[in-house]
Amino acid sequence: MADKRIGFIGAGNLAQPLITHLLEAGYELFLYNRTSSRLSPFADKAQICASPAELGKQVNIVFSLVADDAALQNITEGLQGVLSGLQPGGIHVSMSTVSPACIARLHQAHQQKGCILLSAPIMGRPEAARNRAIHICVAGDETAKQQVEPIFRDMGARQIFDYGADPTHASVAKLGINFLLASAIEAMAEAFRLVESNGISTETFYRMITSTLFSCPAYQGYGRLILDQGYEPAQFSLRLGLKDIRLVQEAAASQQVPVPLAEIIAQHLKQALEKGWGEKDWSAFTALVMGKA
Amino acid sequence: MADKRIGFIGAGNLAQPLITHLLEAGYELFLYNRTSSRLSPFADKAQICASPAELGKQVNIVFSLVADDAALQNITEGLQGVLSGLQPGGIHVSMSTVSPACIARLHQAHQQKGCILLSAPIMGRPEAARNRAIHICVAGDETAKQQVEPIFRDMGARQIFDYGADPTHASVAKLGINFLLASAIEAMAEAFRLVESNGISTETFYRMITSTLFSCPAYQGYGRLILDQGYEPAQFSLRLGLKDIRLVQEAAASQQVPVPLAEIIAQHLKQALEKGWGEKDWSAFTALVMGKA
Repeated sequence: MADKRIGFIGAGNLAQPLITHLLEAGYELFLYNRTSSRLSPFADKAQICASPAELGKQVNIVFSLVADDAALQNITEGLQGVLSGLQPGGIHVSMSTVSPACIARLHQAHQQKGCILLSAPIMGRPEAARNRAIHICVAGDETAKQQVEPIFRDMGARQIFDYGADPTHASVAKLGINFLLASAIEAMAEAFRLVESNGISTETFYRMITSTLFSCPAYQGYGRLILDQGYEPAQFSLRLGLKDIRLVQEAAASQQVPVPLAEIIAQHLKQALEKGWGEKDWSAFTALVMGKA
Repeated sequence: MADKRIGFIGAGNLAQPLITHLLEAGYELFLYNRTSSRLSPFADKAQICASPAELGKQVNIVFSLVADDAALQNITEGLQGVLSGLQPGGIHVSMSTVSPACIARLHQAHQQKGCILLSAPIMGRPEAARNRAIHICVAGDETAKQQVEPIFRDMGARQIFDYGADPTHASVAKLGINFLLASAIEAMAEAFRLVESNGISTETFYRMITSTLFSCPAYQGYGRLILDQGYEPAQFSLRLGLKDIRLVQEAAASQQVPVPLAEIIAQHLKQALEKGWGEKDWSAFTALVMGKA
């Protein structure tokens, strides 16, 4: 039976619907977020903790979903980090998209305290989270994975993909899928501009690709967004998108494998960031690719 | 009612199943192919013609499916070309993937003879053609399109996408989709190598992407092919794939729009051609991208 007393660190756009689903499923939640005002919607339904350490003392299982390596490092090993509160045997499930190097480092830190780190990054945007349509890549200790799987389901996970015992593997898989997404976004923008510049209806072209060879959520969703220039409000910010593509470049460089598409996409994302679009949707860089900015 | 007496020029891997379907549907077929031995399977069921001109004299509607601009130009305007046989009012339906510039030139040549050129490139590999699962982009004269649509259905077209009255537009749309396909193939190869070099099961990763964000024929089919290195026999040759990506680059250059992904893919295809892989499947270039050659 799942432990109904759990912690959740982070209250961003993606975390909020997950917390809501957990509350609906009857969990006793202990919450922490650096900006505590983001937790006000949950103030009367959950325990708001003053620090990750305090949260860690209350529970045996902690989920975290924060922005990047630095934030994860900080809520884990910082002065008031979760690792200083968690008891031996405690499980920390990192759901952020972070570098495999960061996960490897924290995995070791958890082992030294007799705790367990699972890496379980999420595929899906906030809308998918609201609709219980996210997917999760998970890797780490087998027993711990079995313990948290029912909680993933209660959060709204539709499919769970197991990448084995090494927690870094789930992080790399998540980077792989974000890289594929960014590549699809870049390719669509180039193709849309090509057909449009030749006088062709991008709507007909969009309908054709998304009802034949590319009849899948990535092309249907992002294709629509690119054509509508629906970059605000961001579902996933360009600032974080650039961070992820840089992690792809790092993970590739660490194994000395080339990722030429990632280089091009990183350049475009960087140009878009310099335009001040960091808080727009990460697909906003396609406005540059399509010559519309 | 569709004219049941029609011509078909070309007998390549993709043309053969289309001809078979037309024979099954009861058409009286006039066939021509430069290498006439490829028509032997049809010798007792259709009229084999000695030249495109002779074929053009027999029918009012001619379909052609040949390798490239030069071949289309040759069977159309060559000494024994179809235009010297076709009567005024005759329709030539070019189903090849060729440059919009070639289509524009031949469109004019047809108009000068009182004939009609439709551009109707095919999406789908020979296996899809056998399974009546191809799609067609079509553009050109409206009345002629209505006349040939039932014949497309009899050939096995599942969906037909109308790009309007300018026949070059269907050609550009086809280049657009081939560019998206090549981009997806390149992106998958880079992603597979990235995850594999980090010690991760590419099978798990393939299963994940093709059952979630990329649950579509392009990723499912080519992803499988890349992982299995199933490059022979070719469904679509690398030589022709490089030709198509070069047409993408030309069509983009003609409108002064950048296609950086196409530049990278063209380089990889060229390297693969130099390895002597021209007659392998066009996805064979992924062996280079994945460091397996």
